[in-house]
Amino acid sequence: MLRALSEAEAAAARGEVPIGAVIAGPDGALLAAAGNRTRELNDPTAHAELLVIRAACARLGAERLTGCDLYVTLEPCPMCAAAISFARIRRLYYGASDPKGGGVEHGARVFSQPTCHHAPELYAGIEEQRAAGILRAFFADRR
Amino acid sequence: MLRALSEAEAAAARGEVPIGAVIAGPDGALLAAAGNRTRELNDPTAHAELLVIRAACARLGAERLTGCDLYVTLEPCPMCAAAISFARIRRLYYGASDPKGGGVEHGARVFSQPTCHHAPELYAGIEEQRAAGILRAFFADRR
Repeated sequence: MLRALSEAEAAAARGEVPIGAVIAGPDGALLAAAGNRTRELNDPTAHAELLVIRAACARLGAERLTGCDLYVTLEPCPMCAAAISFARIRRLYYGASDPKGGGVEHGARVFSQPTCHHAPELYAGIEEQRAAGILRAFFADRR
Repeated sequence: MLRALSEAEAAAARGEVPIGAVIAGPDGALLAAAGNRTRELNDPTAHAELLVIRAACARLGAERLTGCDLYVTLEPCPMCAAAISFARIRRLYYGASDPKGGGVEHGARVFSQPTCHHAPELYAGIEEQRAAGILRAFFADRR
């Protein structure tokens, strides 16, 4: 999660909403790390989670990341939650909750739907204060 | 929608689940067309809708596709529905309903959540029989 927080800070420095994500393999080795790049790439799907899923799949040459774990600084949105399900991520660790845009504990609650075919084990509130602090500082600077 | 159906047929010929999508600009001009490529690209996020959103954004150099319309042969999953919302798609036209994996009329019902910040106008059942027929034929061949 510390690496995900660094990725969030690096995203803030690029003017992106500061969210960072990491995927670790079944043995704990780092497979992919990324921060949000929606502005830089002009791509509304370039959330940190989607970027690390795509990078880890490319690295493993596989469509599924069975046994891999994803760390992200904010509760995933419904897009990212569904992608995490498709990728068969084993465990999802996240930092701050996101009542406005989250899709895990809030809104679409993707993993709680009967139509969700794979739900990861969930660990919320990991380094929550730091993750939320990075976001708060970013938006305070913009006001 | 006819072009989206051709993209679905082309996806089937590549051994991909046959779903096709198209984005048209505010003037109706074709901006992007794609079929599902999850297997070919080893990318669980390479659904037809995400591919056309990314391609249209790249083409326009913009993170939002305000005024653009998306046509897809099957009800979008929650990942694609959320991406459609982020991209600010104006109208969503789709073919067959998807009770097992859909995220519009089923399951996560992404556009109906209070946390959804933009919902497109919805037009379902467009060329539904043909869209469903392509999927049925594909899965019948695999059994």
